[in-house]
Amino acid sequence: MNNVVFVFTKLVVVISLLISASITFAGELITQKQSFHLENFTTFNGATLPEVNVGWESYGQLNQDKSNVVLITHHFSGTSHAAGKYNVNDAQVGYWDSIIGPGKAIDTNKYFVISVDTLANLNAFDPNVITTGPASINPKTNQAYGLTFPVVTIRDFVNVQRALLTSLGITKLHAVVGASMGSMQAIEWASAYPEQVERMISVIGVGNTDAWTVASLEHWARPIRHDVNWNQGNYYNGEKPTTGLISSLMLITQYATYPEFINSVEPNHTPLQSGPLNDINQTYKVVDWLEGRAAARAKLADANHLLYLVRASQTFQAGFKQTLESGLKKVTAKTLFLPAKNDLLLLPYQAKLAHDTLVKLGKRSEFALIEPKSPSAGHLDGLTQVASKENTIREFLATP
Amino acid sequence: MNNVVFVFTKLVVVISLLISASITFAGELITQKQSFHLENFTTFNGATLPEVNVGWESYGQLNQDKSNVVLITHHFSGTSHAAGKYNVNDAQVGYWDSIIGPGKAIDTNKYFVISVDTLANLNAFDPNVITTGPASINPKTNQAYGLTFPVVTIRDFVNVQRALLTSLGITKLHAVVGASMGSMQAIEWASAYPEQVERMISVIGVGNTDAWTVASLEHWARPIRHDVNWNQGNYYNGEKPTTGLISSLMLITQYATYPEFINSVEPNHTPLQSGPLNDINQTYKVVDWLEGRAAARAKLADANHLLYLVRASQTFQAGFKQTLESGLKKVTAKTLFLPAKNDLLLLPYQAKLAHDTLVKLGKRSEFALIEPKSPSAGHLDGLTQVASKENTIREFLATP
Repeated sequence: MNNVVFVFTKLVVVISLLISASITFAGELITQKQSFHLENFTTFNGATLPEVNVGWESYGQLNQDKSNVVLITHHFSGTSHAAGKYNVNDAQVGYWDSIIGPGKAIDTNKYFVISVDTLANLNAFDPNVITTGPASINPKTNQAYGLTFPVVTIRDFVNVQRALLTSLGITKLHAVVGASMGSMQAIEWASAYPEQVERMISVIGVGNTDAWTVASLEHWARPIRHDVNWNQGNYYNGEKPTTGLISSLMLITQYATYPEFINSVEPNHTPLQSGPLNDINQTYKVVDWLEGRAAARAKLADANHLLYLVRASQTFQAGFKQTLESGLKKVTAKTLFLPAKNDLLLLPYQAKLAHDTLVKLGKRSEFALIEPKSPSAGHLDGLTQVASKENTIREFLATP
Repeated sequence: MNNVVFVFTKLVVVISLLISASITFAGELITQKQSFHLENFTTFNGATLPEVNVGWESYGQLNQDKSNVVLITHHFSGTSHAAGKYNVNDAQVGYWDSIIGPGKAIDTNKYFVISVDTLANLNAFDPNVITTGPASINPKTNQAYGLTFPVVTIRDFVNVQRALLTSLGITKLHAVVGASMGSMQAIEWASAYPEQVERMISVIGVGNTDAWTVASLEHWARPIRHDVNWNQGNYYNGEKPTTGLISSLMLITQYATYPEFINSVEPNHTPLQSGPLNDINQTYKVVDWLEGRAAARAKLADANHLLYLVRASQTFQAGFKQTLESGLKKVTAKTLFLPAKNDLLLLPYQAKLAHDTLVKLGKRSEFALIEPKSPSAGHLDGLTQVASKENTIREFLATP
């Protein structure tokens, strides 16, 4: 009987998804990955990619005049899977499912919510990710690009999204909303294409990457570059630089979280564990946990892609002008900044600077801190605690 | 004429130092490195080192009943050069010269201030450091210890200091004062040898190393362990793991400082530097600065020593008992905790926990935050801004 229900469910879901990009079934938001293909894409720094393929998904229905679009731009280690499930039986929902869905802050009964995998997406080997990056085959050489892939920027991620939206006949965004590296894309949309963006929400974000953040990102790249298997990015036919990639992902987890979070993982931690106390080559349970988590993530990730996302994040300045102020000058969108109070990765002063600059330029900008809930996840409170700003987001989206 | 003055100055200094460990000359505190030798030292975990040699220096005069001793215990990348100069012409003074000297918070007109290089001191190749660690020659094999050196703990650093003090006839400390890893030693003194310690000051410190901090320290070790030249610690007859050591020191500088500090290094930083924008293998000026600083420090440092200091810091719990509370139970010293408000390495909650535990146990403990001065150096405000607590320290030392 259960099998019959399951098959029927699947059938309904498949048929419905053929008609629409997403459905709600038994209270669950169900979506599917779609693919967008683009030829001869020119990057911000003038290189040409013969082809670009990216995945995307959507939730809710596009209205007739295509005026209800909310674009979600994803974070460094994220994908376009922002909400819902692919199957009712999936164990996981998209990362911002707490605020995207029927009746939620970003209400899919009202808005057509769409999200796109970035270029050089970290999770290149995730079957649910479609991306073009250093691990992709260059159609001109039939070899993986490796480091011949051009440096890509936040502007390029935005331009790929814009090409997809154009192909769907969408010329205006009711809002663009993103967390962390996603917030860079959101503010870049508002800066580069002001006539297309009505509202912008930056969660745990920055308006430009300062020297401190450039340096902090560089530490993520070094373990990969120093892995002997990295081989200047040419590892696709041999051993992968997995050790370096794991070290990098361990470091990212540390500073994307917060002491309370890591301490909650090992509530019985003691510095006097016999292994590490007696043997320099043994380590702690919490380190094993951190390494295990990183190793699991490394299986789906590409090391070169990580380097390219580091660089995309390092090269970011809203509007890509001489200064932050000149880059934000054309913004017409109403903006909302939601940094996380305990963020150790992108400290709240950075969102404050972008907000203050907009205010100084006479723009309409709002600012509120995401308060932690114990155990605080630091930067990641922007993903896990974002629903604490549900009303702020709902109202921001509902008003002109 | 200047030469004559210089030679005369040197002569006076040398003669004076033969008589006393330090002198004040033309307003400058002049000290010298001395050496302490110890045989058959047994470590906390039961290993025996056939010999230990450590450097030490002192400032001020030991009084007749040897009751005016203030021991300074040094931080991870520090040495026993806490104050003064070796020569009037030295460009640099010891790291805490702002609070140690004639008339200063730790007044060398009143106190005999002494400091000792730790075991496995990071700066093994600094001509002014004397230390025994993995880079030392094992007299039993005539080879460098490498990883055959036993894990050493904060308790071992304290026990070496205690042996030196005993050799000088000193049985009581008016106070023990340390920053960061030095504060671990200070609180360990008060916990393990309560009858010998009257006052304890912990600057930017912790009472025990929690899971978060164990993990954050592990990131310092990984670049060294993954450097091909590291070779399981056997590199003393070949190429050194300098690349890994530099990456580690870069990471340490990042999180021992603060955004304002790194941003002040490159006030004209722009994310749009042409090199990194166009070439994945080029990098930013601020990264070059960070790497250059690390490379300079790496010349004097030993990679294995760094691993052993990481481990000494990871294995720390005051008193080395089952819990922090049981470890602090025997403390009789009056204690003072001075964490730095902007510390990203050892966040102030850690000093607060040690302080609160002592208060809960009915001990006399005080707590005050070191406020930043722009540009804040984060954790390192404990070194650079400590003089802002001059009066607090002076009064704490002057009262019973």
